[in-house]
Parts: sequence; C-alpha cells; structure tokens
Amino acid sequence: MTPDEFRRHGRQVVDWIADYLESLESRPVRSQVRPGEVRAALPSAPPERGEPYEQVLADLDRVLLPGITHWQHPSFFAYFPANASGPAILGDLLSSGLGVQGMLWATSPACTELETVVVDWLARLLDLPAALRTDSAGGGVIQDTASSASLVALLAAGSRAGGELARRTVYTSSQTHSSLEKACRIAGIAPGNLRVVDVDPRTLALDPEHLRSLVSADVAQGAVPTLVCATIGTTGTTAIDPVRRIGEICREHGGWLHVDAAYAGVSAVCPELRWINDGVADYADSYVTNPHKWLLTNFDCSVLWLRDRRPMIEALSILPEYLRNAATLSGQVIDYRDWQIPLGRRFRALKLWSVIRWYGAEGLREHIRGHIRLADEFAGLVAADEEFVLWEHHPFGLVCFRPRWPGLPIQDANEATIALLERLNDSGELYLSHTKDTEHVLLRLAVGAPSTGREHVHAAWRVIRDTYAAMA
Amino acid sequence: MTPDEFRRHGRQVVDWIADYLESLESRPVRSQVRPGEVRAALPSAPPERGEPYEQVLADLDRVLLPGITHWQHPSFFAYFPANASGPAILGDLLSSGLGVQGMLWATSPACTELETVVVDWLARLLDLPAALRTDSAGGGVIQDTASSASLVALLAAGSRAGGELARRTVYTSSQTHSSLEKACRIAGIAPGNLRVVDVDPRTLALDPEHLRSLVSADVAQGAVPTLVCATIGTTGTTAIDPVRRIGEICREHGGWLHVDAAYAGVSAVCPELRWINDGVADYADSYVTNPHKWLLTNFDCSVLWLRDRRPMIEALSILPEYLRNAATLSGQVIDYRDWQIPLGRRFRALKLWSVIRWYGAEGLREHIRGHIRLADEFAGLVAADEEFVLWEHHPFGLVCFRPRWPGLPIQDANEATIALLERLNDSGELYLSHTKDTEHVLLRLAVGAPSTGREHVHAAWRVIRDTYAAMA
Ligand SMILES: Cc1ncc(COP(=O)(O)O)c(C=O)c1O
Ligand SMILES: Cc1ncc(COP(=O)(O)O)c(C=O)c1O
Repeated sequence: MTPDEFRRHGRQVVDWIADYLESLESRPVRSQVRPGEVRAALPSAPPERGEPYEQVLADLDRVLLPGITHWQHPSFFAYFPANASGPAILGDLLSSGLGVQGMLWATSPACTELETVVVDWLARLLDLPAALRTDSAGGGVIQDTASSASLVALLAAGSRAGGELARRTVYTSSQTHSSLEKACRIAGIAPGNLRVVDVDPRTLALDPEHLRSLVSADVAQGAVPTLVCATIGTTGTTAIDPVRRIGEICREHGGWLHVDAAYAGVSAVCPELRWINDGVADYADSYVTNPHKWLLTNFDCSVLWLRDRRPMIEALSILPEYLRNAATLSGQVIDYRDWQIPLGRRFRALKLWSVIRWYGAEGLREHIRGHIRLADEFAGLVAADEEFVLWEHHPFGLVCFRPRWPGLPIQDANEATIALLERLNDSGELYLSHTKDTEHVLLRLAVGAPSTGREHVHAAWRVIRDTYAAMA
Repeated sequence: MTPDEFRRHGRQVVDWIADYLESLESRPVRSQVRPGEVRAALPSAPPERGEPYEQVLADLDRVLLPGITHWQHPSFFAYFPANASGPAILGDLLSSGLGVQGMLWATSPACTELETVVVDWLARLLDLPAALRTDSAGGGVIQDTASSASLVALLAAGSRAGGELARRTVYTSSQTHSSLEKACRIAGIAPGNLRVVDVDPRTLALDPEHLRSLVSADVAQGAVPTLVCATIGTTGTTAIDPVRRIGEICREHGGWLHVDAAYAGVSAVCPELRWINDGVADYADSYVTNPHKWLLTNFDCSVLWLRDRRPMIEALSILPEYLRNAATLSGQVIDYRDWQIPLGRRFRALKLWSVIRWYGAEGLREHIRGHIRLADEFAGLVAADEEFVLWEHHPFGLVCFRPRWPGLPIQDANEATIALLERLNDSGELYLSHTKDTEHVLLRLAVGAPSTGREHVHAAWRVIRDTYAAMA
C-alpha cells in the first residue's frame, strides 16, 4: 500500500471508527450470534489475489460487527471496563505507524525513554511512593496485562527469595484474581504451595491473622514464603485487602508484597481516593494497575512498578551475542526486554502519553469521579428497593447487588439470579456480569464506558427491575 | 475526545504517518541520541490541564523523532525486520477503535472466530499440515511474540510429560534463540536440565547424533525429556535444524517437538521454499512463526500452532466464577485466554486479516521473493570481493559475511569487525547487526523493509566496502 493509498484508506478507517462510536448506542451491547456463525460466514481459504480495502470494510460491517460485543457501549457494565478514548487510539496508531520494536534501548531510544517518563508521570499522578520511580532502585514498565505483570513480580520475588523452587510458597485469598494462580502454575510453584488465605465474610478482604498463621506454619516446615498478593479492588466486589497489615507480615518473614490494583489503582488520580493505597509506601515490593481498564487507554496497557528492579533483571535477563550493543554494555540505559516475559516490544508508551496530555490530571480525575458518581447513584436506586439487596462496599465504579427472590432457598435463588442475568444480557439492552460472595450470586454493574451517562444507569435499573418483576 | 474531534485529529495522524513514511529515507536509520537525551527533553511531571492534540504531534516531531531508530527505513538491515504495511496499520487501528477485549468467546465472538479463520488461512498459505488447523485436535492462536509462544509450548509439553518438574529436561542448540532459555527459567526448569546440543560447525545446525546421545543419557538417569526445540532459520545465520531427524528422536522418547520458525516460517508462502518444513508434517507438536517479522504485519503478531490443544489447555485454564458463562460451559467455543499467558487479549486477528486480504497469497509471495532476490544480489557482491568472506548459507533475506582483515589474529579481527559495525551504524546511512559463528564475528544484513530496493542494497555494499577500506 503506497503512502497515498494509506492516506485515502486511513481516512476511511478514521471515519468508520467515528461513525461506529456515534452509532454504538443503537446496537445490542452483547453480540447475539451463536457459536460458529461468524466463522461460517467467512471463506475457509485465503484469497489468491489482493482485494480492495473497501471490501475489507464491507465485510467488517456485514460479517464481523454482528459478532462484536461492544465494550465501548454506554450500557456495557460487565467485567471491568476496557475503556478506550480518542487520544489513546491515536497514540496507538502512531505506534503502529512508526513500527519500531523497543526490545533494547538501542533499537529505538525514544521508545524506552518515553516509557520511563510516562510510568513516572503515572506514579506521580497516583501519588505512589518515590521509591517506585525510575530514579530510585526501582521503576515502572508497561506490560500487556496485569496477568503478565504479576508473573514478572512472582519471578522477581523468586529470584530474591532464592533457595529451591519446591520450597517456595505463595499466598493469595479466595478473592484474588485467577491470574495469580495461573502465574504460579506457569512459574512451577507446586500446587500445594499456593496457599489460599481466608477472607472476612462481610468484606471479602483477606484476613491477615489467617495469613500470619499460614506463613508461620510454613516457615516452621522449612518453606520459603516468596510472595503475598494483596488486592486493592478485587475482581468480584472491589474488596480492599489490608495492605499495611499484610506488609508487616511480609516484612517479618522476608516475603515479597505484590499489590494487584489492576482495576482500582488508577482511581488514586483523585486525592480523595488515595486512602486505598494505605501501606503501599511502606511495604509494597511491586504494584500493578491497568490504564487499559479504567484510565481511557485502550487495551493493552498495564503498568507494573517495582521497589527494586535487580531481582527482576536477574530473573529475566539473558544477553546473547546478537543483542550485545554498546549502550547495553555501558550500563547507562534501561533495556525493558529484561522487565518482561516476551523479547519484542511495542511502543505502548505513546498511547498513555497521548491520554495523559490530552486529558491532563484534571480530566483524568473528572473521568473517574464521573463514574463513581454514577455508581453511587445506581447504588442508591438499588438500596431504595426492598426487593434487592445492595452489597454495601462500592468505593469505585462497580456496584454489586442481588434480587431477594423471597421464599427461594439459596441454591434456587442463585440459579434464578443467573437466569435473570442471562435474560438481561440476551436482551442486548445492557451487559452485566456476576460474582459470588460466600453464599450468594451477586450481579455486577461496573460503570466504565466514557459515554455512559445518568440516562444509561437509570435505564439499566429499569430493565433490571422490570425483568426481575416479570420473573419473580 | 468527541467523535468529531477524533475525525479531525485522526486525519492529522494518518497524514503524519503518510508523511513519515514518505520522508523516512532522508532520516538517519539509527537514532543518534545519547542515553538520557530524550528523557531530559520531556517534563518530569505530567500536565495538570489537558493540551491540544497539535502539541502532542509537535513534540513527537521535536523530541521523539530524533530518538527513533527507523525500523521501516529502506536501509534498516539489523536484527530481523519487523515490517509493517498500510493494511496492517489500518487493521490495528480498527482493533483499537472497536476496543474489544477477547479473553472469552463470549466477550466478542467475532474476535475469537476471525482469529480461528486467519490462523487457519495462514496454515494453508504456508502449507502446514492439516493436523495443525482448528478442525483437528490442534489449532492456531495469535500470541504477542515468539517468546511467549515458545513458553506456551513448553508449558503444554510439561503438562503432557507429567512427572516432577525437577526431572524435566529441555534440549536446544547453541544457536537456539535465547527466548527458549528464558522460557525455561520462567517455567522453573532447573538450569542444569536445559541441555545445549552441539551444532555442525559448518552449518550451525543442530547435531542430531549429539541430541540422541544426550537424550539417551538423560533417560538412563531417570529424566523426562520434555521438549526439544528445532529452529528453522536461526537468529544468527538462519541455519535450519534437521527437523525430521530431531522428530524421530522425539518420537522414540516421547519428547515434544517445538519448531521455532519465528523469522523464516512465513517464507513458506512460496512453494519453492516449502522444503524448509521437511519433517514438520510428521513430527512437529507445535510450530511458531511471526507475521510481525517478515509478513508485513506490524508488531505484535506471532502465530503458534499445536497438534493437540488439550495439554496446553490443561496447563493454562482456570475458570473462576466471574468468567463462567453459558458459551464456555457448552464446550462449543474456543476461549483463547486458555491458549496464552495473559488473560486479556487484543483483537489482533484484524490486522493479519487485513494484510492477507489486501495482498492476497500472490502479493505475499512477491514480497518474500523480492527480499530474497535482493539478499542474493547482495551476497553476490560480497562473494565477488576478495576482501570479504561470505557465509554460504543464505536461503532467506539474511546475508552474513565478514571482512578478512588480513594479518590480524582472530580476536583482533573480531574486534575490528565490531568497530567497523559501530562506525557503519554511527553513520546513520544503514543499520546492521552481528552474530558469531564458532570463531568469527559476522556482520548480518537482513533485507526486510517493504521499501528496500536494489539501490539501497547496493548503497549499503558501497558504504560497507568503503568504510572497511578506510579502516583496513
Ligand atoms: C484485580 C485484577 N487483577 C488482574 C486482572 C487481570 O487483568 P489482565 O487481563 O490485565 O491480566 C483483573 C481483571 O479483571 C483484575 O480484576
Ligand atoms: C528464531 C527466533 N525465535 C524467536 C525470536 C523471538 O521473537 P519475539 O520477539 O517475537 O519473541 C526471534 C527473534 O529474532 C528469533 O529470531
């Protein structure tokens, strides 16, 4: 494709996206296709001859769009958001256009140095401790996902802990994201050495006393407590683990404190929410949060900070002949390939830079506050309705709740809640997901799309209430 | 940013990229900045107020561009290419614009099903065995990098091998890419259990007899041979390991044969190059190649195929409550999150689809053949010059060679070659990298940018020869 053809088709695609964003609201939120439908509509063999770009766009409309669940739809309330924004999309486009591969400082110095600058900016925006910034012994790095970030933290922790792999123990709670269990499996932590700490049944936050007793028993048996994961904003209900008390226990036994704030961490752009990070400055060895969830930066962009980068680099650095270069050998540069699982790396800093500059600290705070206001408003509607039970804790954009189903035993009520969820999602009018507390299935409504307004939250509540009424 | 602002700035960015591509040739290939220069030119604190997009673009020109090493430059000959193209950039832009997250089939069915279609297309284009396509017990998946793909293969192999982690052995050659050693470290393979097999000093291809003796000795000691990596197109010199003979040894001992064809694999779009895959149909358990290296698809896009997807899914699948959904439970869909390290996933299939449709099989073959012709032409120039030694084996776009430095002992000659390399790269006129055979430093010239033509290859030869003449 020549630069001139690129100009022409580029405009078509930009317009296609703008039209898509404008028309989003008229589409069913969750795709209505059945398994295999999209695939069956596409040829099973690739084209022998090239085709005009218009045909690609026509098939996008005809075949693919019906199979899209619209994460940017104002009534997308499922999971956690993966909100995008204009400046993020354009930053990403610049990255694709430049087409550089930033595995080493030398392979494009600006790719590395802009990343250093923006992760430090983000640390300042969130008021994270200076010890996590690059001028300290630590620093930050952009990963594809929080899953990969937590795996990197686990490997760094293992390298610091030393000793036999078979003796290393890891501690999570029943509410910890499954990516930590996956990281343990990948890193060869014996399944029996991943300890699941109890949670307070009322808050679903990790119980530090139980952690302490598990760690002590393990140490007595000769285990090496390697990593404890504390979550700020659990996936199920945005519970907040007691980071400070967990940190004290880590300190006593030499364990690495990894803080998973994948979703909620970015909310600390607002000073009134910085209490969520209590204990981080004193104790966290690593901290991860995802601009790709709730900070207007399109997937993928997850930021991991470490207090000490050395054990990570020890765990991950290998220097074969073909990657040797003067800058690396000088010790004066960062090679971010040693801060991640893959070798090659995309210029992801551009999109985060683009977002922070376009919105400014002010705009980012307004974005978070707007969603929290809407979540509060929705929670108020639920709380005011006797037929529903609100999950009290909702400091962020997520509200959990359940219908009472009076007279039904818990198991049947749970099944009825799932049936309600499916009916709601099948309607295409909104998209919710679910979780479980210690007993009940809860519905999850996460406000997160940039275009979500009061009207969408109220409309969601109406259709939830009406559908429940029709089923109850 | 409103859709209308997005339209406006989107056009600016599209034009910026088109201008960039048009002006590429006038820029120094390798960035000339010194460590810290880019960072020092950027503010250390993020902006409080949002800024106009024009300022972002102005800083891109002023601060970042001097720090960019231009991977798309026609005289970029270093490493392996990471070539991009218009349709790839636009496919990626569509992915950013849709902003869907395809961790589960349910979270955007088209994201999963288009991926299934395009990885099957690519398998057909490369004439890979039908057993690697999705309708078999196997299938393909897009990963970020070959590094991650090889890690996934290793985890699948471990799950198939069973037994204690501490007994598992892995076999690579001294020419295998460092990502395999990194994967072993990550997955907890004991350092002593990674065996480095000898290579034939003339071809640098893995010596199957040495492999056989290592495996037999290990088995006799109670080890479980878990994975053997055969490379088609090694990073140093594009050596081709004897896949068939390696496969026979794997078959005897139950080891998993992983084929790393990260760079060279895509060249099998050309029927005359399919000999490189001899043995793959009979023996490969997994196969990886990177459209993001040499198939016009911008980073990141690496395709991994497996003959049997079950051991991988056993290794990587965890189903927490919040991800349960009817489609997953029905068993009728693929959830690609179970085929990769991270949870979240980007809609990468769009860019590969876009590339295959725009170029067609025909265009892709022409792209590969053009680069091979240029590499042959360059090799001819080297071979005709008595002051240089050509590395005979160059079936792809990479040509390795070295100056003779008559009279210098090997060690000094190697240092002189590195000094020559640095002088060349400092000039900004071209960018090369290097490797080592069993004794000598070799210069590597990899033809890979879509815009590289005869004139660039001839110009490269002129400056190499002249600089050498000035130094010798
Ligand atoms: C608390 C928490 N940690 C980790 C993750 C995983 O995120 P990613 O897809 O970036 O790996 C999630 C995803 O929802 C999460 O909620
Ligand atoms: C043979 C081979 N395997 C693997 C890789 C790693 O590629 P990636 O950056 O996609 O992990 C390379 C990179 O050059 C390679 O040449």
